[in-house]
Amino acid sequence: MAHGVTNQPATEIKEPALGHKLALSEPLVLQSGATIESASVAYQTYGTLNTTASNCILVCHALTGDQYVAGMHPTTGKPGWWDGLVGAGKVIDTNRFFVVCANVLGGCMGSTGPKETNPATGQSWGLTFPVITIRDMVQAQVKLIDYLGVDKVFCVVGGSMGAMQVLEWAHRYPHRVFSAVPIAGSYRHSAQNIAFHEVGRQAITADPDWSHGNYLEEKSTPKRGLAVARMAAHITYMSEKALHRKFGRRLQDRVTLTYGFDADFQVESYLRHQGYTFVDRFDANSYLYITRAMDYFDLAQENNGVLAAAFKDSPVRFCLISFSSDWLFPTSESRAIVRALNAVPAKVSFVEVESDKGHDAFLLDESEFHQTLQGFIEGAAAICGLAADRSAVTMSAERTDASGRADTFARPRLRIDLQQAADLVPSGSRVLDVGCGDGTLLAHLKDFKQVDGRGLELSMGKVRAAVSQGLPVIQGNLETDLSDYPVGAFDYVILSQTLQATHSPRKVMDEMLRVGQRAIVSFPNFGHWRVRLAVMYGGRMPTTPMLSDAWFNTPNIHLCTILDFIDLCREMQIRIEHGFALDALGRQRRFAATNTLANAFSEQALFVLTRV
Amino acid sequence: MAHGVTNQPATEIKEPALGHKLALSEPLVLQSGATIESASVAYQTYGTLNTTASNCILVCHALTGDQYVAGMHPTTGKPGWWDGLVGAGKVIDTNRFFVVCANVLGGCMGSTGPKETNPATGQSWGLTFPVITIRDMVQAQVKLIDYLGVDKVFCVVGGSMGAMQVLEWAHRYPHRVFSAVPIAGSYRHSAQNIAFHEVGRQAITADPDWSHGNYLEEKSTPKRGLAVARMAAHITYMSEKALHRKFGRRLQDRVTLTYGFDADFQVESYLRHQGYTFVDRFDANSYLYITRAMDYFDLAQENNGVLAAAFKDSPVRFCLISFSSDWLFPTSESRAIVRALNAVPAKVSFVEVESDKGHDAFLLDESEFHQTLQGFIEGAAAICGLAADRSAVTMSAERTDASGRADTFARPRLRIDLQQAADLVPSGSRVLDVGCGDGTLLAHLKDFKQVDGRGLELSMGKVRAAVSQGLPVIQGNLETDLSDYPVGAFDYVILSQTLQATHSPRKVMDEMLRVGQRAIVSFPNFGHWRVRLAVMYGGRMPTTPMLSDAWFNTPNIHLCTILDFIDLCREMQIRIEHGFALDALGRQRRFAATNTLANAFSEQALFVLTRV
Repeated sequence: MAHGVTNQPATEIKEPALGHKLALSEPLVLQSGATIESASVAYQTYGTLNTTASNCILVCHALTGDQYVAGMHPTTGKPGWWDGLVGAGKVIDTNRFFVVCANVLGGCMGSTGPKETNPATGQSWGLTFPVITIRDMVQAQVKLIDYLGVDKVFCVVGGSMGAMQVLEWAHRYPHRVFSAVPIAGSYRHSAQNIAFHEVGRQAITADPDWSHGNYLEEKSTPKRGLAVARMAAHITYMSEKALHRKFGRRLQDRVTLTYGFDADFQVESYLRHQGYTFVDRFDANSYLYITRAMDYFDLAQENNGVLAAAFKDSPVRFCLISFSSDWLFPTSESRAIVRALNAVPAKVSFVEVESDKGHDAFLLDESEFHQTLQGFIEGAAAICGLAADRSAVTMSAERTDASGRADTFARPRLRIDLQQAADLVPSGSRVLDVGCGDGTLLAHLKDFKQVDGRGLELSMGKVRAAVSQGLPVIQGNLETDLSDYPVGAFDYVILSQTLQATHSPRKVMDEMLRVGQRAIVSFPNFGHWRVRLAVMYGGRMPTTPMLSDAWFNTPNIHLCTILDFIDLCREMQIRIEHGFALDALGRQRRFAATNTLANAFSEQALFVLTRV
Repeated sequence: MAHGVTNQPATEIKEPALGHKLALSEPLVLQSGATIESASVAYQTYGTLNTTASNCILVCHALTGDQYVAGMHPTTGKPGWWDGLVGAGKVIDTNRFFVVCANVLGGCMGSTGPKETNPATGQSWGLTFPVITIRDMVQAQVKLIDYLGVDKVFCVVGGSMGAMQVLEWAHRYPHRVFSAVPIAGSYRHSAQNIAFHEVGRQAITADPDWSHGNYLEEKSTPKRGLAVARMAAHITYMSEKALHRKFGRRLQDRVTLTYGFDADFQVESYLRHQGYTFVDRFDANSYLYITRAMDYFDLAQENNGVLAAAFKDSPVRFCLISFSSDWLFPTSESRAIVRALNAVPAKVSFVEVESDKGHDAFLLDESEFHQTLQGFIEGAAAICGLAADRSAVTMSAERTDASGRADTFARPRLRIDLQQAADLVPSGSRVLDVGCGDGTLLAHLKDFKQVDGRGLELSMGKVRAAVSQGLPVIQGNLETDLSDYPVGAFDYVILSQTLQATHSPRKVMDEMLRVGQRAIVSFPNFGHWRVRLAVMYGGRMPTTPMLSDAWFNTPNIHLCTILDFIDLCREMQIRIEHGFALDALGRQRRFAATNTLANAFSEQALFVLTRV
């Protein structure tokens, strides 16, 4: 398995039944200060490393996962925990990528942990094993990656505790990671999650068979304690809705209540099964150590309470994914990371997948999730030259005239009003496209103006389409989520034909000019003569080519005229740098939007704004 | 404590240290079919029963509560669990009400339960105690109430498991309950809640000191198991936010992590404390039995899956209260009960209290909660003649002319447009006032037209104000919550000056005419000449006396003209029974709203609609 890297301070141990195992020849110095003299890392690989060693995807597993990501698990006989995602032709395509997954340090599937024998004593480590952290786990993975001959990992990906490892990788080894996908994770374990872990630990240590951690030597097993710990944890992996859908109050193999303490309800029977099958495949002390590592994880605290500092100047491309019904690692946790990454600013995409399956969704075949991940990986692969084919976009040459304005006629696909906005943005600017849709404008700005562009979009499908093009787009609501961006993060913030559909146009404009030096805003003009005549003589709410929806279902809930808009800018102390009067197709009129003719004779307007 | 009732089949047992205890002389036949030959009910009372025995408030306690509602608890030395609510001059005022609370059957504070001695064997019941249900608990309370000489309880109130007892009372003894207040409860225990209970039971029964339930005889105590059960449960009583606010990731009596399994974090220390103090005051077997009783509770299943059937023709006045951050008994559970009660239809008020304190909020001094409860109790007391004073409202005589229309000039306080609506409603109608505010119109309709009125209102403060007048008002959003009402539940559904502020006016109208025979809708007319001229010649969005907000912050997001509205009615196959053209003050014009003059010359309009 060595890939031509010399001076490898490690040796491969052959354990065919349990896969690969690497014995590290250098001691592992832990975050706590303790040292493990001779640690081993058990791991699996899938696919083949290419000649430039650029196609490695490192998968990080969760609390009770292991290195058997795909294929058949050697001890349970079931498919690997991400078998739906990882394999030939799958989302993480082993025909193209070299996939690596290691059992975490402290685990119980071959890597050094409390269950393994301490060479110094000849006995199992038990509680003499030092407390480890997420950082320690990642440190061991780095040594594995070194051994495998990979200098830069194309993508580090993982869910739950795996997401913590992904963040640790991006934080501590930013130049060894091209892209990072933390799924259903957090930058720190919450008080509630610590509490749930503590309950699990108390259940284990309350079991007399735990024998103060020495059960392996005492030939006992704290089955009951570990089963209770697993049962409590298992509830947190599912949503209330999923439990209701799956079990409800249905009875187990009976038609009436037994008025006893048997498992009358299916959900009880299911939980007991979850608990008591778990003890066959997991080590109680490993459970203590790994839960502790999660509790200790706090990237903000490590950086003086400022999470953004953990990712300063990060070159890594991030894609955060959360699940709407996950209450163990809720979307708000992922959003906090997105906010910190925006503040750096790093390149970040984010999608909250609609799912009622709770935290467990990251292990299930959720098509929205898989498609989002696939889109991001393909987009990132295209940038790295790892994609099978990269279509027309990269083939079209950039064409700009002397003024820096792109030649509009070469790209007929861009909507005229978007072209208007694009023409106003200087090359190399930092741009936020609010309501960016599938990323058409951003892709255009990237390809033709070398713009450092970001997008915000409400529709999950459109975000996915944009992310698939390698664009950093965040799923979010423009009325609430502009607050995620820091002051002056962008040169231009673009809002096209959407201001009139917001609940708080004033607040949106405020926010745009907080996060951007300039704002480009376009909207339909309610002052156009056609609108006025329709109201005056029609006696009905106007419908025009620009305002075609009926009064009762129009998305335009805060319409204004050009004069109203200019008034509001004045009141808000916003300076109008340019005002373009446009016709219904977005073509520029001969007069400016600030001209007295504009309010009556232009169907729409586009303004470039800045703070006075 | 006997209140002049003869033939009492029960005797009071004197146990001064532990309060009152009633020995039932008749056997208790349980829901399971089992019988307890000689059961006892331990209870406390506060205040004095009045001569008509009409001032009794029965308080039902939760899983780990007991009969010591107020004052000092005899064993813990702490204030009773609702000491903030119950007492002289408090929300449940013991100067005016006779408050009763009984330890539940199966409990461990004196009522018959697994900890007590089985007279037949002379040993503690332990697991030979029969499994009991919420119905059994309530049955025992009924015998207590009989003994106390109370025929009809003024109010049954309780939170969590207490709410289940309240619902059981209202379901099974509707004529012995005037009002019922289920707080933070449900009509059935959810799959997730059964799962959490099962974890607790597994933790207890996994403890070897539990001795198969025989620990009292074996002189052992399953402390560790019960503590783990309590810890797991305790997490569910708090919200993630409350845990974060209270503890966050703060360390306990140390400045750095210890890299060990001590309670490094405050939240761990707190949980351990909660667990290990609980075992001093609670019996492990009681925990098993009471959790089981909750799991078994399902009022819908008992009524062939139709919850509404449990409350058919119920004369009880209900007030449901939930807390926004309660995830153990979330608002959706209370809403399901509200929906069922609406379907009956019963008189129901509902408020979701904004709180970040989770399920525990019902035990805490949440002022919004206390004020809501106080409002409801005062409103109900006024109806029963229990209020200290009932002001002007009841003193004004009803005055209607021959046509059934009320004399508008006698009540100057009602807004003219509300008076317009009130005049259209025949006496004795069933009316839903959508967006009812503080209930002004409903109170008017009730006092002067004997209307059976209900209200729906978004603002918690206004709902509270309405509920305080004894009006059944539900906190909710008119765009989503009209679906809670069944087809044809009302003769009239009134929506005053709000249609234009909804997101889906069409859907709202559809819903109004689904739940009501007729709808009364009023709105400002965008077709008025003043509006038209402002648009035509002003070049700005119109502001008029009727439409006074600026374009960027107007709540009116779907304005229409009278003609637009008439068009929509035609399209929706809605028949206009009456259309009133009104001026800006709501005074009726000489022409109808369907007259050609109306669209240009009336500031607003009011329509009476019905389905074709």
